[in-house]
Amino acid sequence: MSDAPWPFHSPGERRLDVLCLGHALVDRLAYVDEEAVDDARLEHGVMVLVDADRAAEIERLFDGWLQVAGGSAANTAAGIASLGGRPGFAGAVGRDEAGAWYAGDLEAVGVASTVDTVASDLPTGVCHVLVTPAGERSMATSLGAAGWIHSSTVEAAGIERAAVLYVEGYLLDAEAAPAVDRAIDLARESGTLIALSLSDPFVVSRHRDRIAELVFGGTVDVLFGNEEEVLGLTATANLADAASRLAAPGRVAVVTRGSAGSLAVLPGETVVVDAVQVDAVADTTGAGDLFAAGFLFALTSGRSPETALRIGSFAAAEVIGHIGARPAIALSLATPAELGGH
Amino acid sequence: MSDAPWPFHSPGERRLDVLCLGHALVDRLAYVDEEAVDDARLEHGVMVLVDADRAAEIERLFDGWLQVAGGSAANTAAGIASLGGRPGFAGAVGRDEAGAWYAGDLEAVGVASTVDTVASDLPTGVCHVLVTPAGERSMATSLGAAGWIHSSTVEAAGIERAAVLYVEGYLLDAEAAPAVDRAIDLARESGTLIALSLSDPFVVSRHRDRIAELVFGGTVDVLFGNEEEVLGLTATANLADAASRLAAPGRVAVVTRGSAGSLAVLPGETVVVDAVQVDAVADTTGAGDLFAAGFLFALTSGRSPETALRIGSFAAAEVIGHIGARPAIALSLATPAELGGH
Repeated sequence: MSDAPWPFHSPGERRLDVLCLGHALVDRLAYVDEEAVDDARLEHGVMVLVDADRAAEIERLFDGWLQVAGGSAANTAAGIASLGGRPGFAGAVGRDEAGAWYAGDLEAVGVASTVDTVASDLPTGVCHVLVTPAGERSMATSLGAAGWIHSSTVEAAGIERAAVLYVEGYLLDAEAAPAVDRAIDLARESGTLIALSLSDPFVVSRHRDRIAELVFGGTVDVLFGNEEEVLGLTATANLADAASRLAAPGRVAVVTRGSAGSLAVLPGETVVVDAVQVDAVADTTGAGDLFAAGFLFALTSGRSPETALRIGSFAAAEVIGHIGARPAIALSLATPAELGGH
Repeated sequence: MSDAPWPFHSPGERRLDVLCLGHALVDRLAYVDEEAVDDARLEHGVMVLVDADRAAEIERLFDGWLQVAGGSAANTAAGIASLGGRPGFAGAVGRDEAGAWYAGDLEAVGVASTVDTVASDLPTGVCHVLVTPAGERSMATSLGAAGWIHSSTVEAAGIERAAVLYVEGYLLDAEAAPAVDRAIDLARESGTLIALSLSDPFVVSRHRDRIAELVFGGTVDVLFGNEEEVLGLTATANLADAASRLAAPGRVAVVTRGSAGSLAVLPGETVVVDAVQVDAVADTTGAGDLFAAGFLFALTSGRSPETALRIGSFAAAEVIGHIGARPAIALSLATPAELGGH
């Protein structure tokens, strides 16, 4: 075979459906009992930020960690690839073994990765996830290098060639904020839609002014949040009030409600769909990430808002049925026919 | 199902691999013997332009016309769709039954069509194709409305959202020239690659200065021609000399040689592949169009230049094995595994 390259940048390599920007975290999962969460001094069902020493301490408490290239936006990218879309991921890792391994693990599932190594001695970010028999996840994230995303990484990521830029809300923490600003500028200049996930109720409370500016100032085209996050952002007490605050021309706000379904707030209408029922929830890690993956895959492949909610629900249901934040099957082959699957 | 639309232009609907610009012609094919070509006063094996009266006369000579939405660039678009790509087509039709039918016939095979109706009384273009038992095609094209493509049609076609703009050389005839200029401007502004087919040796001789300006001035990124067309354009006597004239940074020139194979002239190298052998040639109509389809599909889906030639050869071989200028099978399912097919 000739290996002559194209004399121009090949469009086949450069077009993306969704460029996901987020913390590059090595997920390390352990299946434990309820008491172990207390033993590890973690809060039940929430994510806390820890330093590298605490991460090392938690690491030593258990055996048999399951490792996968994770982080919220990276999970979304892996989900889009599994559905048959063309995702990219941009983030930062440390100069260590985990950092060298990270991009390859994402690329192996079809994510075009722009993962740069930081100049400092910060280690690659790690997220220890303790999963209880009830499927509750208690997480300790040691961000390390993950937040130190350079503008040059963002500029090399191909945002201008993507249909959608997807930013995880976790990135609004201080060190990544300039990279988020640069990414948003690039997206605006090139007509790339801007999607933001609220990520966590604590993110909303920590960065409420900045998020409100991005959402209500019209920068965000697609907003993702669960009920608690959306109520926090809109300072409302119920979803109907939150929806009327969020409805605006040019914007869609997606609210996930776990087993109670999901809704898309559009300018003139709110579309509601039921959740896909799951027999046994094994691990809710990645549910929101995969919901966003399904929704964005549908958006970028010409489906309607309602079908986007349904594919989001389908992808979320698959991922909570087993341990781990990535699809266990090729979602493109499993997508129900009525949603345009095989 | 809710039919709520997206509150912004859905990227899933607007992204195209290749936007094909060309004459919208209703192909009407008849399988005839050698003498019938003389009876119709057509030249064996070539295309001639005729007026509407001559077209009506030829129409009356035979029965059993096979009708399909054709034209060179439209055939290429249909081929790209058959391979699994996302093509668009832009062109002009008359205010008549054939014109109303044309876009639907293309859309039925997966081509996003922007086919506008001209303001005049010109009829929809038609191409009568007489196919002999040896597979030779003698064509009479009555362009009618096909060349009267407005700048507004070109502007609505989505060139800025396509990876490649593909222009059939036939369009360089007078009335379509402003539309071609506008399309090229839009492509340049948005970083869309520009591909041009030479279409026919007569096109090269009629428009040699304009084509030379487009090619050697660096506007054309991907040039398609057969041996005769390329020798005519470069004013050379053999392919080696033509290749050295055509080789330039940022450009690939594709030369098809029928059963003798094809080659891609790249800046530092010429890649040569054999033709896919065909047992019985039924009708060479569409061979060049489908070669371009395969090549452009490969280019826009991340394949190498060599694989692009092979997929082009494969698509051309399929279409000459039966009557008609469109694939008779879903090429995406028939593509050999070594070319990345099923």
